[in-house]
Amino acid sequence: MAEQAGQNDHLIISHDSQHPANLICELCRKFYTLGWVTGTGGGTSIRKDDHIFLAPSGVQKELMQPTDLFVLDYPTRNYLRKPQQLKPSACTPLFLAAFDRGAGCCIHSHSQWAVLVTLLVERDLGKDACFEISNIEQIKGIGKGRGKAGNLGYFDTLRIPIIENTAHEEDLTESLEAAMEKYPDAFAILVRRHGVYVWGDNVHKAKTQAESLDYIFQLAVEMHKLGLPWKV
Amino acid sequence: MAEQAGQNDHLIISHDSQHPANLICELCRKFYTLGWVTGTGGGTSIRKDDHIFLAPSGVQKELMQPTDLFVLDYPTRNYLRKPQQLKPSACTPLFLAAFDRGAGCCIHSHSQWAVLVTLLVERDLGKDACFEISNIEQIKGIGKGRGKAGNLGYFDTLRIPIIENTAHEEDLTESLEAAMEKYPDAFAILVRRHGVYVWGDNVHKAKTQAESLDYIFQLAVEMHKLGLPWKV
Amino acid sequence: MAEQAGQNDHLIISHDSQHPANLICELCRKFYTLGWVTGTGGGTSIRKDDHIFLAPSGVQKELMQPTDLFVLDYPTRNYLRKPQQLKPSACTPLFLAAFDRGAGCCIHSHSQWAVLVTLLVERDLGKDACFEISNIEQIKGIGKGRGKAGNLGYFDTLRIPIIENTAHEEDLTESLEAAMEKYPDAFAILVRRHGVYVWGDNVHKAKTQAESLDYIFQLAVEMHKLGLPWKV
Amino acid sequence: MAEQAGQNDHLIISHDSQHPANLICELCRKFYTLGWVTGTGGGTSIRKDDHIFLAPSGVQKELMQPTDLFVLDYPTRNYLRKPQQLKPSACTPLFLAAFDRGAGCCIHSHSQWAVLVTLLVERDLGKDACFEISNIEQIKGIGKGRGKAGNLGYFDTLRIPIIENTAHEEDLTESLEAAMEKYPDAFAILVRRHGVYVWGDNVHKAKTQAESLDYIFQLAVEMHKLGLPWKV
Repeated sequence: MAEQAGQNDHLIISHDSQHPANLICELCRKFYTLGWVTGTGGGTSIRKDDHIFLAPSGVQKELMQPTDLFVLDYPTRNYLRKPQQLKPSACTPLFLAAFDRGAGCCIHSHSQWAVLVTLLVERDLGKDACFEISNIEQIKGIGKGRGKAGNLGYFDTLRIPIIENTAHEEDLTESLEAAMEKYPDAFAILVRRHGVYVWGDNVHKAKTQAESLDYIFQLAVEMHKLGLPWKV
Repeated sequence: MAEQAGQNDHLIISHDSQHPANLICELCRKFYTLGWVTGTGGGTSIRKDDHIFLAPSGVQKELMQPTDLFVLDYPTRNYLRKPQQLKPSACTPLFLAAFDRGAGCCIHSHSQWAVLVTLLVERDLGKDACFEISNIEQIKGIGKGRGKAGNLGYFDTLRIPIIENTAHEEDLTESLEAAMEKYPDAFAILVRRHGVYVWGDNVHKAKTQAESLDYIFQLAVEMHKLGLPWKV
Repeated sequence: MAEQAGQNDHLIISHDSQHPANLICELCRKFYTLGWVTGTGGGTSIRKDDHIFLAPSGVQKELMQPTDLFVLDYPTRNYLRKPQQLKPSACTPLFLAAFDRGAGCCIHSHSQWAVLVTLLVERDLGKDACFEISNIEQIKGIGKGRGKAGNLGYFDTLRIPIIENTAHEEDLTESLEAAMEKYPDAFAILVRRHGVYVWGDNVHKAKTQAESLDYIFQLAVEMHKLGLPWKV
Repeated sequence: MAEQAGQNDHLIISHDSQHPANLICELCRKFYTLGWVTGTGGGTSIRKDDHIFLAPSGVQKELMQPTDLFVLDYPTRNYLRKPQQLKPSACTPLFLAAFDRGAGCCIHSHSQWAVLVTLLVERDLGKDACFEISNIEQIKGIGKGRGKAGNLGYFDTLRIPIIENTAHEEDLTESLEAAMEKYPDAFAILVRRHGVYVWGDNVHKAKTQAESLDYIFQLAVEMHKLGLPWKV
């Protein structure tokens, strides 16, 4: 079965630069340069119709090739393609949680700025607090919420929930889904001492929202160093 | 009309690397690496004779192609080229304000160093204060002022006005123009919690002035962290 | 003899991108970008069967070519290839210490984050203390120890011993080997005011462990700046 | 005369990547990425036999082409090649001061780490103090001094003199030469609020010494932020 799944190369071989298999590899090379997928950390997944394309676990993300990708049948959750010698990403149920809420692409980053933000919020505001910031232009890079037209405004408060990390990545699923339900407008969830999950309706939105958030997390850490408050 | 405008590909297709359409794409790739156009933020515009070339709104700037560009007829302000499915940049009236004052190229960056400088000036010197620094060699990378020959000297004070941000980018136009009138020698205007607009007589001057200013903003933030004053 | 050794080009010329001679050059270009081999600092070595491939001393690591590499016969420790006009790396005995303990690849970095961590540990915890950190997701990028299956868990404490620097790099060998014996599970040893040695069963593991550790060292320095403790 | 000099393209056109004209362009692209030649700042010069190759003033260093270079006849100080529309670098007399003391290559960087170090030394140690640091491995990347074999040792103190900046770059010549005479073993001179001049017997040594020094300046600034002293 796994062998058979391994043969479905037509699912991931394409000359089209916009094919999900090519996009995932290109994004991961970019994310490596941004410090989001250091070591073998982080990951990316794209949903195209009923196919979900997934970067595998434990690979050097900047070297990844389309042939390294897993493909899942979204309705049945069966693997249509399963490269031998590679393991599916432990993030898979977390990516699925985003797809179940309408996402077309989900990005998981280990960015140090995300990790530092979760630590600062915990110490300064408590374990139950969200990361909140307002009156920063880049907030306008983040959508208003699922199914809502347009993006947040400059005077809006960007609110990103934070969940506690667990020993095993797949065990984050329950609290991630709970946070998604509690904050239905959020396009990202921070994971304490770990990183961030960011998603969007499509690759363009997931990627640009992930960039805008990382910019905001970095700015927030630098503001903290300089004694500047996050909210006016 | 929009469709007709969309067909004027001859305005943006050229083998000449110095053609404005090619230059804007090359600059935006460079600015992405510098962290100036994260997400879909920032932008660039070039005036060549009566044509104004504009990066569109909401695109990934490092992936931008000449075919994504808008072209405006400067005398009439009518679009000569308007790519369907893309929106003109909300920065357009701000870029025009610079062109109206003799600029040949205008760059809008969301650099975090610019944002942090506006926050430090506000807290330490007040809302009406300009960013001011002197006795830094890189100041010599900035021109003396419109129509004035040569650049600032090492002992000169570099003075960059700061305007308050607004909910909508186009609403910055009035205060930007007011600052341009009040500080006619400035080649840049900082926007609080947002970024900076930098311009110059041509692409070379706008780009090198934008780089020199970003260098100075970063240095100023690091000096602040180390307790070093901006003026001697 | 040296001339004869110099002629064994077949040992280092290959069209296979996975050949150790090509991998060392590719890794060093990457490490240059990461700031690990600035100047001519740092180095990398790979063991393949009975051959040990070594970057030479004193070369610009980002410009290195396969023809610059030394090849050592592991059982006899004789040079099979010795480029004239180049000197063997002073790290050679240190790399051998890792190979003698089962490593397939060893990386030596001068990363500033490693250096700063050794200084902070010395001042805050004393000369005999290890660098210790826990509850950071990236810790899961580091193996449990030689011959042990799997990687450290999120709640495990990552412990990296620190040895004192010496005037001559080869004089580190004794204390490095002593630390390896005292901490048999460590895949890395920090050298005070100098950098870090990281190894792994193969190139993939050495490289990803080196990246994960550098990420953790950088995060630890930033946490220190923000007053956040390394252990919960 | 200038036109005639402008025609000597054979001096700067070569397929050899090690030709000084090609090396200067490659170095400047690298230095741009390192942040040493932002705007049009900084520069590089190589002496090959009786020819001195110079990057011009006021160009974007990452875009520079061999045809942009000036060539000077070292014995007579006459220009053998003078590109029309370009100005010779104001650093020229400073580069010549290094060549007169045996250098084969001289690099001028506006690195912010160099600038910050000059400010910290002035405030903490006084205007007459040198930058001094010891017990850092990377110090071993710097030579012992002109005509002396080998490099500094780990326990040696690296000492870089600092001169005051002047309004015009060429006016630095006198104090630069005075510092060269007073500290004959130095391969670099810092310029307060400006940057650093680094040289070496050849391109390899100048470049790797410039990198090692920049590493040390950055480390020194970070050490200062963390309250760690530069000398043990």
